[in-house]
Amino acid sequence: MHDDTRSPFHAYLKELHGRFRGLDAGAVADYIPELAKAAPESFGIAFATIDGHVYSTGDSTTAFSIQSVSKPFAYGGALERLGASEVLRKVGVEPTGEAFNSIVLDQQNNRPFNPMVNAGAIAVSALAEGDTHEDRIEGMRALFSGFAGRSLDIDEAVFRSEAETGHRNRAIAYLMLNTGMIDRPPEEVLDLYFRQCALRVTAEDLALMGATLANNGVNPRSGQRMLAPEHVRDVLTLMMSCGMYDYAGEWSYDVGLPAKSGVSGAVLAVLPGQLSIAIWSPPLDAIGNSVRGVATCRQISQDFGLHLFMNAASVEEVVRRIAHADRQSSLRIRNPRERDLLASHGGRIALVELQGALYFASAERMIRQLQPLAAEVDYLILDTRRLNSLDPAAEAFVDRFLAGTRDEGVEIAVAEIASRPADAAAALDRLADRNGLRRFDTADAALETYEEMLLEKIREPFDFSRFSLSTIELFKGLDDAQLKHVEAVIQPMQFEAGDRILRRGAEGHMFFVIARGTVSVLVPTGSETAMRIGCIGPGQFFGEMAVLEGGARSADIVADERTICYGLTADHLETLGHQDPRILSTILTNMAREFAGRIRRGNDIISALQ
Amino acid sequence: MHDDTRSPFHAYLKELHGRFRGLDAGAVADYIPELAKAAPESFGIAFATIDGHVYSTGDSTTAFSIQSVSKPFAYGGALERLGASEVLRKVGVEPTGEAFNSIVLDQQNNRPFNPMVNAGAIAVSALAEGDTHEDRIEGMRALFSGFAGRSLDIDEAVFRSEAETGHRNRAIAYLMLNTGMIDRPPEEVLDLYFRQCALRVTAEDLALMGATLANNGVNPRSGQRMLAPEHVRDVLTLMMSCGMYDYAGEWSYDVGLPAKSGVSGAVLAVLPGQLSIAIWSPPLDAIGNSVRGVATCRQISQDFGLHLFMNAASVEEVVRRIAHADRQSSLRIRNPRERDLLASHGGRIALVELQGALYFASAERMIRQLQPLAAEVDYLILDTRRLNSLDPAAEAFVDRFLAGTRDEGVEIAVAEIASRPADAAAALDRLADRNGLRRFDTADAALETYEEMLLEKIREPFDFSRFSLSTIELFKGLDDAQLKHVEAVIQPMQFEAGDRILRRGAEGHMFFVIARGTVSVLVPTGSETAMRIGCIGPGQFFGEMAVLEGGARSADIVADERTICYGLTADHLETLGHQDPRILSTILTNMAREFAGRIRRGNDIISALQ
Repeated sequence: MHDDTRSPFHAYLKELHGRFRGLDAGAVADYIPELAKAAPESFGIAFATIDGHVYSTGDSTTAFSIQSVSKPFAYGGALERLGASEVLRKVGVEPTGEAFNSIVLDQQNNRPFNPMVNAGAIAVSALAEGDTHEDRIEGMRALFSGFAGRSLDIDEAVFRSEAETGHRNRAIAYLMLNTGMIDRPPEEVLDLYFRQCALRVTAEDLALMGATLANNGVNPRSGQRMLAPEHVRDVLTLMMSCGMYDYAGEWSYDVGLPAKSGVSGAVLAVLPGQLSIAIWSPPLDAIGNSVRGVATCRQISQDFGLHLFMNAASVEEVVRRIAHADRQSSLRIRNPRERDLLASHGGRIALVELQGALYFASAERMIRQLQPLAAEVDYLILDTRRLNSLDPAAEAFVDRFLAGTRDEGVEIAVAEIASRPADAAAALDRLADRNGLRRFDTADAALETYEEMLLEKIREPFDFSRFSLSTIELFKGLDDAQLKHVEAVIQPMQFEAGDRILRRGAEGHMFFVIARGTVSVLVPTGSETAMRIGCIGPGQFFGEMAVLEGGARSADIVADERTICYGLTADHLETLGHQDPRILSTILTNMAREFAGRIRRGNDIISALQ
Repeated sequence: MHDDTRSPFHAYLKELHGRFRGLDAGAVADYIPELAKAAPESFGIAFATIDGHVYSTGDSTTAFSIQSVSKPFAYGGALERLGASEVLRKVGVEPTGEAFNSIVLDQQNNRPFNPMVNAGAIAVSALAEGDTHEDRIEGMRALFSGFAGRSLDIDEAVFRSEAETGHRNRAIAYLMLNTGMIDRPPEEVLDLYFRQCALRVTAEDLALMGATLANNGVNPRSGQRMLAPEHVRDVLTLMMSCGMYDYAGEWSYDVGLPAKSGVSGAVLAVLPGQLSIAIWSPPLDAIGNSVRGVATCRQISQDFGLHLFMNAASVEEVVRRIAHADRQSSLRIRNPRERDLLASHGGRIALVELQGALYFASAERMIRQLQPLAAEVDYLILDTRRLNSLDPAAEAFVDRFLAGTRDEGVEIAVAEIASRPADAAAALDRLADRNGLRRFDTADAALETYEEMLLEKIREPFDFSRFSLSTIELFKGLDDAQLKHVEAVIQPMQFEAGDRILRRGAEGHMFFVIARGTVSVLVPTGSETAMRIGCIGPGQFFGEMAVLEGGARSADIVADERTICYGLTADHLETLGHQDPRILSTILTNMAREFAGRIRRGNDIISALQ
């Protein structure tokens, strides 16, 4: 758990709080007695990130009634239930110069100008669904609880106080009943609306509700999708143009964040895609916005350039790395001939590591990088292990790019789809289906497969009938007499597919040279299945580490197919050394040479990875 | 060079063009004869990215007069010359429901509502600077040429036509002279204003002008800064709220991009931080916006979710990788004792690779990741090689984080400052100065330095007085008699600091064991200076690769200080083998063991890097 008190963000919030605590202009709303009871010195600030982390200071866990800050969320809920075109029939999207409690309706359509003024919010309440009034109240409470990520309740005293005194809102509701914008009994609609305004929240709750908007409609703590992205868009647009009462124009120029304020003294501002800021401090200015709330938001926006149009011009670099198989090969251990072939021809396989988020501009940049690459290779592997999202714009363009690349005869594989977040995985699946991409669990598996396909094209087949010890790299340089000595000392062993030849943790005294077949190197993972980290084939040896360095085997070795190996122990080597010292020094020199090659290959991989 | 005709973006633009070409509603503006001459079928589309790449189709290189699309750029120029407070005295920032050519001024301040209506734009023209009228015209032309990245000229016929018929604009100018909003002869101000509207541009020019806004005020092709970021912010805010005449409200809800249109049929829309879209097609709708321009922009925004509030919730992952020196050590080759010490204690050194852009939200996430890490280590290395930008908000918070971390006794280094873009390098320099960070050219140099500091603390000093061949790993296991044989065959060689012991490319028959001193491994780079890729110290050997594998030396080896080595050739080894076969097999086994260790270390680095 992150210790927030040591965070510079926490320190900053405390400084802000100290700075604006003394600002004692404004007056607590008094049009209903319950609101007038608020302590003017109350002052809480909370930040929430799109991964649900909340920083807060001051009275950030004190509850107050949500009031007008409820309006964008209620509007979002209506969009989600009924769709935009149905909601637009009842309430417009035009900013208005009129006050928030204006009775004026849009002359042309007879509907409220927008859902951020009382008339519009009441029209939205009239769109509630449910069989009974109680169902509709419960539906409203559940909606807001979903945004906040905890069960919210209604402040009954505030509700009753509003219900008793809300005559202007009654007038608005009856006017709209008259024009047909609401078609339920006004008293029932107002009852629901007043209850909505009386929901008890804290600054931290509001910050999380805002973070749900910033996070594209998904509550970052619960993971619940509250709004579709297009409805988040609509809600934020209206908060931007109409959220701060008559102050919206100047707010948009100076602060530049979609925001909503309410008479209980709350201001909620959202930086889409990044974070939200909630401030609660009851004293209001003449327009009806929290004095400390506005001052604090202006300061934050100014300090950190959070204005929506204060962009660092920055398109994410989605291509993390491009490698070719001549420099970076799969974990499969290769004999020198295969190594040479891959060093010469491996450039025909490209491995592209993707990262971050693919959206319109980052996809454009990625495609501009990959298009010349795709023109030069036969095999293209897209490793999506670090790709977190892929929006519809990116998907459409990547689709076109893949189709064109495939039409030019490039084999394309995509690795790690299954490990991706659900939305990204679904998009990648669609791309793979539509373009006949080959799927692999890991980039290494794809790389090995394409290496094999490439080698298949270019290497001469391995001739088992001509197999003899002399074709094994380890025994190279021995003459016939010396090879006879070796044959006499070591014996072939046969294993069947699935046989475990070495067991991780066991002590090792013998190492093995493969005459025929292949074996896999497996290491345990947290899960049931072991991870295959390498593959060893004819002419290669394994198990020498434990023999040379002493100690236990570091991996399981399992035969992939029927496999013939020669086993050698330290005693065997000593015996051979006694018979002819040059046998031993030749074998050790060959081994050292093989090691030198592996070190060189390792260094290549390291420099390719850096 | 990227071949655009194969790009899916180009294909998409062509499809759009085909789709809306047939849309023949609207009428070409005819209030001046020159505009009425435009061919109604003209239709060009251009996209420009923030790195200056332009995709285009149709009549995208045909010139037309810029008209009202000039207004945001002229406003930006005024903000840049005079500052926002001076400009705000003469022209407001309030959206207005009035028509673009309205004569009405803001009653309260007697100034035009905003610089996107004619009155505001004329007030902006009155703010031009220069000693003579010609200077002011040239200043205006230079400003627009800077945005477009090429020298623009004025369409004299259009200019004369407007000057002769612009009586309504004359009325506006005289009204403002009357209220004191302009203080130059109206005819001169209007002359400049009409010339500005008559600048000849193409859709591609407009796209690049828009990309300059999208790119935070810097022309992406010329690199010239045209506007400070805060003035880009102000310009985009007004384009968003007032750019599309009376259509601004609906545009903001549906399309959601800051935009500006003009009577010659151009629409320019900007997606801040990402790209711009310019469309030219003369027929206008009743409000005065290009019919094909609006339709095409709506389609693009809808197809790709470019609406400003249609965000993929995505905070860049700035921490690319965290490594510790127990798993990933510097390139310096270590003896087994040092390797063991680093394996046990290297966790006290952390190497953090940063990437991409640091802004408020990405800095918050980074600090949240680094704070627990910083609490656990003694040395923290920030490798900024892939960090592209650092905005003021990020700088402020990173500053606080570094100060706190340093106060807790962590040594902090920053590598690769010099290789960063100028703005990022300047910010990193400030952070390093303020927090006493140690600077390194490369992360490897920082890693090696901190490894040495760590080893200094924990290892026992190497005792040269007790040095003998038996302390060299390669000769371990030899008894006294065998060591005497070795001493008789090999001879120590002494090198001084700077001596080149091995030369890259030379053939190699000898390998070397270091008794005392250290040597550097150097490989050539493109530049004058070679890159140091490793360091080898006492007890280690070098030069064995060329001896084992045959062929040429792969690097230069240069003594760092007075160094004593033993050289061994294949002949030496053979001689030793004849004298006592077990000497040779012991040496070869030790060598193989050393190799096995290097392979294991290489594998660790590879798995750490992946």
